[in-house]
Amino acid sequence: MGKFDHDLLLGIDIGGTAIKAGLFSHAGDLMAQRSISTPALVESGAYAAVNQALTALLAEQGFLRSDIAGIGIDIPGPVREDGSVGFLPNIRLDVEGLKASLAMAFARAVIVVLNDANAATFGELWQGSAKGERSFVFVTLGTGVGGGVVVDGKLVLGKHGAGGEIGHITVNPHETRACGCGRLGCLEEYASATGLVRLYHEACERAGAEARDTSEGAVAVFQALADGDEAARLALSQMCEYLAVAFAHMSCIIDPGAFVIGGGVSASFDVFADELAERFRAHALPMCAETKIVRASLGNKAGIYGSAYQALLATAAEE
Amino acid sequence: MGKFDHDLLLGIDIGGTAIKAGLFSHAGDLMAQRSISTPALVESGAYAAVNQALTALLAEQGFLRSDIAGIGIDIPGPVREDGSVGFLPNIRLDVEGLKASLAMAFARAVIVVLNDANAATFGELWQGSAKGERSFVFVTLGTGVGGGVVVDGKLVLGKHGAGGEIGHITVNPHETRACGCGRLGCLEEYASATGLVRLYHEACERAGAEARDTSEGAVAVFQALADGDEAARLALSQMCEYLAVAFAHMSCIIDPGAFVIGGGVSASFDVFADELAERFRAHALPMCAETKIVRASLGNKAGIYGSAYQALLATAAEE
Repeated sequence: MGKFDHDLLLGIDIGGTAIKAGLFSHAGDLMAQRSISTPALVESGAYAAVNQALTALLAEQGFLRSDIAGIGIDIPGPVREDGSVGFLPNIRLDVEGLKASLAMAFARAVIVVLNDANAATFGELWQGSAKGERSFVFVTLGTGVGGGVVVDGKLVLGKHGAGGEIGHITVNPHETRACGCGRLGCLEEYASATGLVRLYHEACERAGAEARDTSEGAVAVFQALADGDEAARLALSQMCEYLAVAFAHMSCIIDPGAFVIGGGVSASFDVFADELAERFRAHALPMCAETKIVRASLGNKAGIYGSAYQALLATAAEE
Repeated sequence: MGKFDHDLLLGIDIGGTAIKAGLFSHAGDLMAQRSISTPALVESGAYAAVNQALTALLAEQGFLRSDIAGIGIDIPGPVREDGSVGFLPNIRLDVEGLKASLAMAFARAVIVVLNDANAATFGELWQGSAKGERSFVFVTLGTGVGGGVVVDGKLVLGKHGAGGEIGHITVNPHETRACGCGRLGCLEEYASATGLVRLYHEACERAGAEARDTSEGAVAVFQALADGDEAARLALSQMCEYLAVAFAHMSCIIDPGAFVIGGGVSASFDVFADELAERFRAHALPMCAETKIVRASLGNKAGIYGSAYQALLATAAEE
C-alpha cells in the first residue's frame, strides 16, 4: 500500500434522479465509480442507502471508510460562500441531514458542499481541459448558457454572486425580445441550445424556407447542417459570432488562459470550433488572439471530479 | 517608540520629470512625503541623490534607514510577473541600477518594482476608495482608458498581460473609425478625455453648431456643459452610456464590489456620477444594479500608496 492510501477522496454528484459517486486518489485518478439510485434524500433510510453504496464502492477496491480524507458533494442549486445552501427548486434534498449522516460514517473526512456548475468547472481545472491553467472560463452551452470563471485557481463568485453569469453578457444591443432575466440581447439568447434553435427558425423564415422539426432541440439543427441546410449554417455562424464577441470582452478584462466549452451543444464542438476560433481572432486584442478554445473533456463526470477536488482543497487547508 | 517602528515602508513613484516618495507606517498612514527632482536615473550620482533625499525624509521624522522594511518602486512601463522590466519608451531609467543602489543603502528592505497603473490600483485598494473590497475594478479616464482588475485582493494580469485592458472592450459594434489598437468601437474611443472631446465635436457637427476651442481637452467640454451647451450634454451622455455597457459586462463576468474612477476626467466625476449610475442600473443584472461607482480618492498619491502596499505584501510573504 502506498503513501496516500489514507488520503482518498469521494466526489458525489447529486442530480434530479440519481447520484453519481467517484473514488479518487490524492493525485486525481478516478479509481472507481458507481451510480446510486435513492429515494428523496430527506430521511435516515435514504442516507443509510448512500453510506452503504459508498462503503461497497470502497470495499470493492480494498479500502475502508477510514481511508477517506475528504468528501465533496455537488448539488443542483446555490451554495453560499459559508457553505450554506439556498433554495433548491428541482430536487428533494436535506443537505444538512445527508452531511451529518456522512460525517458519522466517515469520521475522518472533511465534507464540503458546492454548486454543480462550480463543481464541473473545478473538475475541468483539476483533470480536464483546463488542467495546468491558472485562469480559465468554463462555458456551458445547454438549455441556457452558464459559466464558471476561475482566476488564479479560484472560482470568482463575485460581490453579489453574479460572477460567471456569462450567459447574461449583452452581445446584441438591437434585440427586441427579452431574455429570461428581463434584459435584451443576452448571450444566452443565441448560444444556448434553445437559442440556436430559435436562430435556425428565424433564418428559415427570412429565407422563406420550411424549418425542420426541432422538437429534439439543437441536435436537429446540427443534423440539418450536416445535410447542407443553409439556414442551419447561418444560425450556427450567428451563434459563433456572439460567443466570439463575449469571449473577446472576457479577454480584455481577465485574459483567461482558455475557454472550455461544455454542455449539450458541445457534443458538436468539432463542427463549429474553427469558425468560433476565427471569429474570436477577429474580435480579440491581438495579444489574446491565440487563446485556447477547447471542448470540456470530462463530460458528465466533471461533477464528481470537481467535488473531489474541492474536498482535496479543504483537506489541504486543514493541514 | 511603538511596535512597528522598524516596519516602515517607502513608496516611490517614478514619473517622467520627478520622483514622488512617501513614508508609510505598517498600518498605511502616510507619515511624510516629498518630491525629488533628479537627472535621468541611469548612473550612480543620480542614485545617490535619491538615497540622500530618502534618508533626509526619514531623518526629519526621527527614523533611520534601518527602520525601513520594504520599498516599492512604481515605473511608467510594463513589469513582468517575475519583476523584470520591459521596454520603457518615455523615460531614461536603469531600474536594476537603482534597485542595487537602494539595496546597499537600505540593507534590511525588501525591494519590489511594479507598473504605475497597477500601483495606483493597489493604492486605492489599500487606503483609497476600494478599501475593504476584495474585488474591484479601477478605471482611469485619461488620455486613454486604462484599468486594473482586482479579484480576491490580487491584480489580474492575465495569460498574455491583457487583464484590465478595459479600454479595449468593444462597446460600439457600428464604429467605423479604428482605435489605436486597430479594432473598432473600443471603450477608450468614447470615455477617454480625447474620446469625450471627439464626441463633443461630433455632436456640434450634427447640430450644425460651432464647437468651442477644445485645445485644453476635456475640461473645455465640462466648461461648455456648465454653460448649458446641449452638444456637451449629449457627448457626456454617450460617454456614460458606453461606460455603463462595459461596467455591465464586467458585472456578469467578475461581479466586482466597486468601480473606482480615476484619471483626469474623474476631476468632474460629480457632474456625471448620477447619470452613469442610472445607465449602469439599466444595463446591469438586477442583482448587481447597486454596485458602487465611486471616484478614486488618492489622486496622484495613489502610486506611492500602492508601491508601499506592494512592498508590505512582499515583506509579509517573506516572514
